[in-house]
Amino acid sequence: MSAPATAAAMRAVVDAGGPDLVRVMDTVEGRLSELARGHGPALAEHAGSTIAAGGKRLRPLLVCVSAGWTARDPELLVRGATAVELVHAATLVHDDVLDRAGTRRGRPTVVAAAGREAATATGDLLFSRAFAELAGAGSVEAVRELAVACSQLAAGELMQRADAYDTGVSVSRYLERCRCKTAVLFRAACVLGSLAGDGEGERLAVFGERIGLAFQLLDDVLDVAGPPERTGKPRGTDLLDGTVTLPLILARERDPALASLDLRTVRDPVAATAVCDSIAATGALADTRARGLAMVAQAKDGLAGLEYRRRAALELVADGVVDRYA
Amino acid sequence: MSAPATAAAMRAVVDAGGPDLVRVMDTVEGRLSELARGHGPALAEHAGSTIAAGGKRLRPLLVCVSAGWTARDPELLVRGATAVELVHAATLVHDDVLDRAGTRRGRPTVVAAAGREAATATGDLLFSRAFAELAGAGSVEAVRELAVACSQLAAGELMQRADAYDTGVSVSRYLERCRCKTAVLFRAACVLGSLAGDGEGERLAVFGERIGLAFQLLDDVLDVAGPPERTGKPRGTDLLDGTVTLPLILARERDPALASLDLRTVRDPVAATAVCDSIAATGALADTRARGLAMVAQAKDGLAGLEYRRRAALELVADGVVDRYA
Repeated sequence: MSAPATAAAMRAVVDAGGPDLVRVMDTVEGRLSELARGHGPALAEHAGSTIAAGGKRLRPLLVCVSAGWTARDPELLVRGATAVELVHAATLVHDDVLDRAGTRRGRPTVVAAAGREAATATGDLLFSRAFAELAGAGSVEAVRELAVACSQLAAGELMQRADAYDTGVSVSRYLERCRCKTAVLFRAACVLGSLAGDGEGERLAVFGERIGLAFQLLDDVLDVAGPPERTGKPRGTDLLDGTVTLPLILARERDPALASLDLRTVRDPVAATAVCDSIAATGALADTRARGLAMVAQAKDGLAGLEYRRRAALELVADGVVDRYA
Repeated sequence: MSAPATAAAMRAVVDAGGPDLVRVMDTVEGRLSELARGHGPALAEHAGSTIAAGGKRLRPLLVCVSAGWTARDPELLVRGATAVELVHAATLVHDDVLDRAGTRRGRPTVVAAAGREAATATGDLLFSRAFAELAGAGSVEAVRELAVACSQLAAGELMQRADAYDTGVSVSRYLERCRCKTAVLFRAACVLGSLAGDGEGERLAVFGERIGLAFQLLDDVLDVAGPPERTGKPRGTDLLDGTVTLPLILARERDPALASLDLRTVRDPVAATAVCDSIAATGALADTRARGLAMVAQAKDGLAGLEYRRRAALELVADGVVDRYA
């Protein structure tokens, strides 16, 4: 999904971070390109396009700002930031296989360009490269953090498939799914940063999890609200996948027609758009958004007492998450 | 694939190893079951069946016998053995997705039982659990070894898909593919064992790579030779996938009809069986088998000078690889 507002917010963080942060992010970018080039033609061809296409680099940025301004372990900082982006890229490649997605960030997906087989193997390769990259920094704690996060990412994906078309799913089950499929990697990014830098791992872990959850909630709002020209995909894509998100869960409590809707009968974009309109009419989007914003505010509150510059940079990242919706 | 001969050879190693080896292998088995049970219903349901179905546990056994009799780091030994089996299980689950396989080891595959989505996520989960498990032992070197092996496994898979239906593939390209898709995990198993035990990592790495290569060559012979009641799959499955292996490469040099064969025209098991018969008639199976056996002999030769008990156990494992074909 293209999100220029986020990119602008990210630029603000980089600007606030000064030359050091810019240098580290450039180094990460360089490593990502090297990885795309340096592991044979197959990776260069398939994964290279995914990596090179860019995206917001939100997770590497989170590693960097979590570290603070005196990275005790610059190697771990760069490798950690690279590794989280590789994991993110791996999940995108596998998600596109499952969703049979044709384009991402305006380019053909790996599965569209090279087929399911190559795309599945490419995702596996990106996962493996992430661990190889991180292990090179010599921190077992960092590897363990990323491994646990990856396990939960996959568990979240399984949970989503298991819950598909189940409109009776509870809010707490939904939040647990969001935590697994999204928030754990934000959390890991913060913890890796803290390991490479000025510590405060537990506090940063909580911060990362909260903004990761908010990120997913606001993403789920975007799926219903659109507009397609901003999100780069039609409204209601989740509905067509059978993925029940908070806007629908809340809307079902307010609109009997939605409460009795069988998602399996929603089969095309026109029908999905109509359901999106019904959801929006209940006020569920505003409520979901408010929950997301409250999580961001709570995440920021949790930073009280952290040294000023690190806190300011983390708050800017948190704002970047919110700006996706603005 | 069921391979009772291998199971018997493995039993011989366990018997030779005595109560210590039995205890370690039992512990590994226990951890694998725990992992199937301990990470939510989704993993229990999907991956549990793959893990529980067993298989030969050849790779964990290789970790154990590579360590020798005085495991300096019993935690790393058990976790390393568990991790390699989890990686192996992950690759099986993903392979079955790509091959649309219905059964494995006589049970429904994850993809057959739960669909492509759940199977892809299950494979990702098994990969991640492998790294989480191994990281718990605290050895960065071990994690790096496994991560590099996993990268190469995926690269090997990509290579195989890139070469599909290319009958002009060279022997060296074929061997490199076998090294990546199979031998690197045998190698990693040996190195993990050496890290947990009595060292000699470089020598064991070479041993592991050689028997891994032999394993793949003999497996490729089995695919052509069958018989189906022993291998559990029809003859010529590789041909139907477009996978060009050494028997066909060698046979093409001897039989002009095979040399001009377009694999894409081989579309059903009957046609595949006929091609298998043509390959067998050239003597290419015996030659491929001889190459595999030579690799095993060379692998054993490389153990000269290693302390007697470890060497004897490693030789038994090498024999187990050969016995698959006997």
